[in-house]
Amino acid sequence: MAHISIEEGLPGILGPMKFRPETTAPLRKLAEVLLRDENTLTSAERETIAAFVSSGNECRFCQLSHSAAAAEHLGGHEAHYALVESVKTDFSSAKVSPKLKALLAIADKVRKGGKNVTPQDIAAARAENATDKEIHDTVLIAAAFCMFNRYVDGLATWQPEDPVDYRPMGKLMAHSGYTRTEWEK
Amino acid sequence: MAHISIEEGLPGILGPMKFRPETTAPLRKLAEVLLRDENTLTSAERETIAAFVSSGNECRFCQLSHSAAAAEHLGGHEAHYALVESVKTDFSSAKVSPKLKALLAIADKVRKGGKNVTPQDIAAARAENATDKEIHDTVLIAAAFCMFNRYVDGLATWQPEDPVDYRPMGKLMAHSGYTRTEWEK
Repeated sequence: MAHISIEEGLPGILGPMKFRPETTAPLRKLAEVLLRDENTLTSAERETIAAFVSSGNECRFCQLSHSAAAAEHLGGHEAHYALVESVKTDFSSAKVSPKLKALLAIADKVRKGGKNVTPQDIAAARAENATDKEIHDTVLIAAAFCMFNRYVDGLATWQPEDPVDYRPMGKLMAHSGYTRTEWEK
Repeated sequence: MAHISIEEGLPGILGPMKFRPETTAPLRKLAEVLLRDENTLTSAERETIAAFVSSGNECRFCQLSHSAAAAEHLGGHEAHYALVESVKTDFSSAKVSPKLKALLAIADKVRKGGKNVTPQDIAAARAENATDKEIHDTVLIAAAFCMFNRYVDGLATWQPEDPVDYRPMGKLMAHSGYTRTEWEK
């Protein structure tokens, strides 16, 4: 049971979001800009960073829903789901671009604490042609999921066990986005 | 020097915020709702939670600016600055209400990871008459500052050394708020 009285049956962040609409509006907008607005990083790449950070923080709801969103952006086939899983298991050996690997390395440092990011980490990303905006967005995505993960787990929200249960949600996150709420009904 | 090319001379979060206005808007709005909108927790209490979490995360910019904002909300005298410092040093012995102490204990757990919050922590807050909304907001303030701290430090922003340098900023944060930007000029 969640730590506060939120509507039962709403998974993860959806319960607290319904409980407190005033904070929900900027949280949704932040997710939309970071993960879906036009960007030189694809939405699949950004959702993969979000899922990877959430996996490191062991937040089941966030990591499985954003993994599903990433896989959906890639096409939604089993191979896409497997690819995202492989990033969470060991991104250095995953079949993703060297640039994304360099950004994932930065995201992992940010997750553990901002001061861990070194000039060498940044130089490694630049060597793969990462731009300032891509580095900025990677840092903020990682930081934002350190917030979302703590929000979801700090209130002890209900989170489905089976990864497959997150697929319809991932589809809606990927294709309808974070500021449209009709898909929650 | 910061990890990306942001305007020099802007302290802490203000550099990245100017660099990426699209993400800045929801971040500012979130801070405004969490720290300044009408609430049964005073703004001084909420800014104290923000400063306390930022202190735990060792983010100088966030902890000193929000400490100054908290002290300003209390009246801006030296005693108020000292009170906020005492919370960061050892909140259990600080001269703040038992309810705020119980909420700070929750915030500290959230800072270290959402799953650390126990039903006993929540019961202790309820025993001091904390409401669901107050508990929710404490969890989200703590989570949000885990984001802000990582954003500020993950980009290696410039952060003044002297706590006194944060007082004018704290005054503006407390009295002009987070969504009005004229005070940055």
